[in-house]
Amino acid sequence: MRADARRNIEAILEAATRLLAVDPNASVSEIAKAAGVGRVTLYGHFATRTTLVSAVVDRAIDQTHKTLAGVEFDGDPREALGRLLEMSWQLTHRFGALVVAASGTLPPDEIRRAHEQPAERVRVLLERGRRDRSFRADMPLEWQVSVIQAVLHGASAAVHRAEITAEEAPSLVRSTVLAALTG
Amino acid sequence: MRADARRNIEAILEAATRLLAVDPNASVSEIAKAAGVGRVTLYGHFATRTTLVSAVVDRAIDQTHKTLAGVEFDGDPREALGRLLEMSWQLTHRFGALVVAASGTLPPDEIRRAHEQPAERVRVLLERGRRDRSFRADMPLEWQVSVIQAVLHGASAAVHRAEITAEEAPSLVRSTVLAALTG
Repeated sequence: MRADARRNIEAILEAATRLLAVDPNASVSEIAKAAGVGRVTLYGHFATRTTLVSAVVDRAIDQTHKTLAGVEFDGDPREALGRLLEMSWQLTHRFGALVVAASGTLPPDEIRRAHEQPAERVRVLLERGRRDRSFRADMPLEWQVSVIQAVLHGASAAVHRAEITAEEAPSLVRSTVLAALTG
Repeated sequence: MRADARRNIEAILEAATRLLAVDPNASVSEIAKAAGVGRVTLYGHFATRTTLVSAVVDRAIDQTHKTLAGVEFDGDPREALGRLLEMSWQLTHRFGALVVAASGTLPPDEIRRAHEQPAERVRVLLERGRRDRSFRADMPLEWQVSVIQAVLHGASAAVHRAEITAEEAPSLVRSTVLAALTG
């Protein structure tokens, strides 16, 4: 592939990620315009809107995995969970609205896949922390995973409603989840 | 209005509430069948699917207000919040999926209205509990309201995914929220 084609694809995916996160119904024309390419060029790379949304979600999943792989999981479970929550907040807030965009377009399996690997990492960490009593073990593990996801998505929604700022969100998420898990 | 017409309307609204909570895309024919009335009868009372969904949501909001009005709000703030959470759980689990059904059909304002009065009661209770140090006051009040709503909806989703049972949900919601708010 020629370098300018690669650059166009990257610009389209970047613009689509940005626009779809704000407006799940953003049109192909709006995305092409924001990417600085013509509609014909866009359709040359992505034959349909569904293909484009799918590529955006795949890229978001890839970036999520790469980012989470960089989080240090060893050491004190509460501190490790704190680090994981900060990273997860950034990813949830950046990509969370994509789930809404994708849910009308993609099969539920693909959306579930976006949460599976992150959830598995949380699960392993919670198990370790429940064993050494860093976290309470009087609730089902799966419930604790659900609470973490609910608080992360709730925080993103609260930022969109301007109830809290994106700057204070990570520390609110962190202290709320840690309190709920150690209570 | 004749008694049989009132009975039909009640049966249609009851069936629509039940079906839409499980499948937001339930059709008018399915709802008529579950209510034991013909399509012509249903359309005689509700001219369009949107009118029907709107009536179902209005009824859910009414029932929510009546139920919450019966909750004892005085006394120890933590115990009062515990009582409110148990009631809210029942309402969220019964009507929560309606929000999904409604969100494709109704204006966002009507959905916001369903949460406004319950949120206001929570707000008043949290303010009282923050003053007497029953609840932590080192986080924005609106954030705590968001956390409560996120945990309630998360619990309903977890029951639908069979990760927890509907029986254990209320006590999990209660102990998780109280931990998060007092932590």
